[in-house]
Amino acid sequence: MEVGRLRILGVDPGYGIVGIGIIEISGNRISHVFHGAIETSKDLPRGKRLKQIHEEFLRILEKFSPDECAMETLFFVKNVTTAIGVGEARGVILLALEEKGVPVFEYAPNEVKISLTGYGRASKRQVQENVKRFLGLSEIPRPDDAADALAIAWCHALQSRMRRVTHGKD
Amino acid sequence: MEVGRLRILGVDPGYGIVGIGIIEISGNRISHVFHGAIETSKDLPRGKRLKQIHEEFLRILEKFSPDECAMETLFFVKNVTTAIGVGEARGVILLALEEKGVPVFEYAPNEVKISLTGYGRASKRQVQENVKRFLGLSEIPRPDDAADALAIAWCHALQSRMRRVTHGKD
Repeated sequence: MEVGRLRILGVDPGYGIVGIGIIEISGNRISHVFHGAIETSKDLPRGKRLKQIHEEFLRILEKFSPDECAMETLFFVKNVTTAIGVGEARGVILLALEEKGVPVFEYAPNEVKISLTGYGRASKRQVQENVKRFLGLSEIPRPDDAADALAIAWCHALQSRMRRVTHGKD
Repeated sequence: MEVGRLRILGVDPGYGIVGIGIIEISGNRISHVFHGAIETSKDLPRGKRLKQIHEEFLRILEKFSPDECAMETLFFVKNVTTAIGVGEARGVILLALEEKGVPVFEYAPNEVKISLTGYGRASKRQVQENVKRFLGLSEIPRPDDAADALAIAWCHALQSRMRRVTHGKD
């Protein structure tokens, strides 16, 4: 079975820190490409932080040219104030993805956990251990937000491969 | 007392409809400049709607060159899913304001009501009636979101004038 090369960008958005994780499916192999984070200072006004997120995220899209993007659905945020802040950061990220024509796929947090551990209530640590193991990394990616972003990308990689097989695209 | 000309943009953000209201303080007079709304179709994917909001909002900033922008704080949204949606729309609006260098001021919903009716729990209708009356309009502005945006701009106009008097800027 041969599937085409597919580069997937996982994103874990937030105001202070946006986790970035990039992996690639090539044939029957899934490999690590990059992980990192966009960080903004809480001393800056909100507009400046959003502009920084938008600009740095656009640069990541230009540098790595992902084919698809995966994010978590956000129906589970603990409080409304956090939700608005995360929503604002998501807004400028979704805008950048639209500007570069990258399609976005969303997964519930428990889907992400299942794809990495087989268990929807796995701990953050278990998920991170398997991110490290499955991608053949020497240690758990830091910061946590980048490890989360790789986990989301992994979830999409499995789903995407399953869709391709189901729809007979390869 | 003479205050400089100050053009204020009130915004009431949302995914489906963004209310826009523009007023101007000139000397001791506050006058209506424009009101309207940016509407996006719920049949479009989220990224496309955010891009449309960002682009149309930038055009409004270019056309009317507001000096300052006023929005409501959003700690009072009813549920988290709504909060994320409103947050995403706010994100691209705050980005556009930052890109054009327009400072943003935020007011709680009850501050807006007090500035128009003297009463923090006034009904939407009472607020809208006074928007119409104070700005010398022949009818209540439509849609509701535009009337709300004018109310927020009015609130900022009063606060701004008060600040100027207090700080002896005129």
